Amino acid sequence: MKNFTFYNPTKVIFGEGTIEQIGAELSSRDHKKILFLYGQGSIKRNGVYDTIINSLNENKIEFVELDGVKPNPVLTKVHEAVALCKEHKLDTILAVGGGSVIDSAKAIGAGALYDGDIWDAFEGTIRVKESLPIFTILTISATGSEMNTNSVVTKENEDKKWPMLTGPCSYPVVSIMDPKVQAELPISQTINGAVDAIAHIMEFYFDGSPNTDVQDEFSEGMIRTVIKHSKILLADPTNYESRSQLMWVATLALNGVISSGTKGGDWATHMLEHSLSAFYDVAHGAGLAIMFPAWMKYVHEDNIAKFAQFGERVFGINEGSDEVKAVNSIYAIESFFKEIGAPTRLTDINVSENDLEKLADNASMKGALGSVKKLERNDLLEIYKLAF
Amino acid sequence: MKNFTFYNPTKVIFGEGTIEQIGAELSSRDHKKILFLYGQGSIKRNGVYDTIINSLNENKIEFVELDGVKPNPVLTKVHEAVALCKEHKLDTILAVGGGSVIDSAKAIGAGALYDGDIWDAFEGTIRVKESLPIFTILTISATGSEMNTNSVVTKENEDKKWPMLTGPCSYPVVSIMDPKVQAELPISQTINGAVDAIAHIMEFYFDGSPNTDVQDEFSEGMIRTVIKHSKILLADPTNYESRSQLMWVATLALNGVISSGTKGGDWATHMLEHSLSAFYDVAHGAGLAIMFPAWMKYVHEDNIAKFAQFGERVFGINEGSDEVKAVNSIYAIESFFKEIGAPTRLTDINVSENDLEKLADNASMKGALGSVKKLERNDLLEIYKLAF
Repeated sequence: MKNFTFYNPTKVIFGEGTIEQIGAELSSRDHKKILFLYGQGSIKRNGVYDTIINSLNENKIEFVELDGVKPNPVLTKVHEAVALCKEHKLDTILAVGGGSVIDSAKAIGAGALYDGDIWDAFEGTIRVKESLPIFTILTISATGSEMNTNSVVTKENEDKKWPMLTGPCSYPVVSIMDPKVQAELPISQTINGAVDAIAHIMEFYFDGSPNTDVQDEFSEGMIRTVIKHSKILLADPTNYESRSQLMWVATLALNGVISSGTKGGDWATHMLEHSLSAFYDVAHGAGLAIMFPAWMKYVHEDNIAKFAQFGERVFGINEGSDEVKAVNSIYAIESFFKEIGAPTRLTDINVSENDLEKLADNASMKGALGSVKKLERNDLLEIYKLAF
Repeated sequence: MKNFTFYNPTKVIFGEGTIEQIGAELSSRDHKKILFLYGQGSIKRNGVYDTIINSLNENKIEFVELDGVKPNPVLTKVHEAVALCKEHKLDTILAVGGGSVIDSAKAIGAGALYDGDIWDAFEGTIRVKESLPIFTILTISATGSEMNTNSVVTKENEDKKWPMLTGPCSYPVVSIMDPKVQAELPISQTINGAVDAIAHIMEFYFDGSPNTDVQDEFSEGMIRTVIKHSKILLADPTNYESRSQLMWVATLALNGVISSGTKGGDWATHMLEHSLSAFYDVAHGAGLAIMFPAWMKYVHEDNIAKFAQFGERVFGINEGSDEVKAVNSIYAIESFFKEIGAPTRLTDINVSENDLEKLADNASMKGALGSVKKLERNDLLEIYKLAF
């Protein structure tokens, strides 16, 4: 097991009926003037908005509202929000939504205390050292952003969908998670969330780390859990227990528990997907369902025993050599993605074959990718071709 | 899944060669005058003591030393340490050792800021609200105390081995865990640690909580990991990878990850064991190896499907009805405890049959025990008889 540091101070409040606690959580920490940030307005239809407003009012918390954060959130919106924070001297950010809103909040929180353009932290010329405190109410499970410091934002005019260099100040202080509010989510978002959670787990699982027995056990158990409960939700989207399991697993997938003692993940597939969604209007989870099997096909020979173990333990593939098990495990995860209705080919989302070179150029903009196998620009092109 | 709050701000620094970071961790937080608390002196033989002293000196941290914390730590030692903290106006506690030292540190940290006798928090007349900050260096893996707020101390003259009513202030700020320092641990302590970790996992696993798929997956995976690596360590006590796995699993067993969404554990077995070690000089892990199978025999009919699942997934018991699998799972865990050299009967540790009534009286001092089945004084007596 590799040496590691685990530190995750986010307080998670999980379960039905917990959202009304937000006002008390804010006021007990003396946060009095907040940015209330959200997305496209679904929270006004499912009652979450009213619950929050009541709780803020009851606790006498002033707020400035900003809506309109889009999936694949963009830097111009971050700039708009930073300006609001500075203008109104806001002391806290309340992000209500999924990963796009929470990722934006981290960039906004850092930007509000930074004199330059916070994009510097995405280019990597600075690392975030201070941030307005961030509170979240999670309404779409997928990215795990509610319990980590990650933030991915797109700079539209340069086609850069990049992660921010963050620090401990970007952990949400409190994240409230009520599985019930996801009961009426469009089924495509449930599917994308399930794929995203599995993809996060696989990034660590396949990164080539030695001696990760308990991490493997956790990872395999989480993937089995996602497979079981995403299938239940396809038939019964309001199933509270399955919503709960999927919600909590998506958080655990990227909160440091399973990554501790690993190399920190491979992440080539995520960067391959980020290029995809920088050019095409594709949900992150959908893009991952396409790119992960393609990546697996390209790299599995570099970690054949692990791919065989994956097949055995997650899909019960016990026949044949490790090579056979490894290949069959790739088809098994691809079949599962298909079964729940996720796309598995670039053609499923209307990517043009002419764009593959451009995608490879974009994905390799920061250099070679990956941990289990170093992937140069031409490797990335081959993977896009496998995904076509 | 039940509603829950997860909050665990302890920073874990894990791996070979990490102990020398202690001085920098303390001084970066402005802790300047500390109580350096440890046990029976094994840290002077394995080099840990010298590493710590060097690191404290390099970082110009003043310290007052107190050694002699015993296994099954006692209140008189806590009082002695509290007096030292007050006399020297110490601002921090550094606990170096296993659960007994770290549990004591939590009582001392709370006691140093409390005007009365900190035993009040064990009687339950107060709950701890403030504490001196606690830093730990873990040298014996077992209790998980390095990453939770638990503290169990014995009031010798009243035969009370009880847990303290703590709060978030009792989380260690930083815990440093170097698996290598456990290479020369007496094998009995390794065994006791393995049993203790498994026992913690089973307290949650068998507490009768509904809808805990991912928690079950984690729990079963952790127990399989402990079984695998404790067997390796019996043959090869210096195996770093097995030490690492056992160390990290023991922490994960009781840091809130697997308990989230459960009823919070059964804990009858732990209280049965606490009575045992209040009267007899028996290590906690050894007492648990005796009491857990006895408890399982007494209660398994109240949660037969879960006991069958345990047998299937942990020991591969696939034959027969759930009843048969459940019974066989109990014998399987008992056999494992025997195989690694843990005691499994009260006679193995020379408990007198005449004492069983006294043990049952003591264990029921605070009322009925347990979650999956409420156990009154006479139930507890029956379980002690099964363990005899």
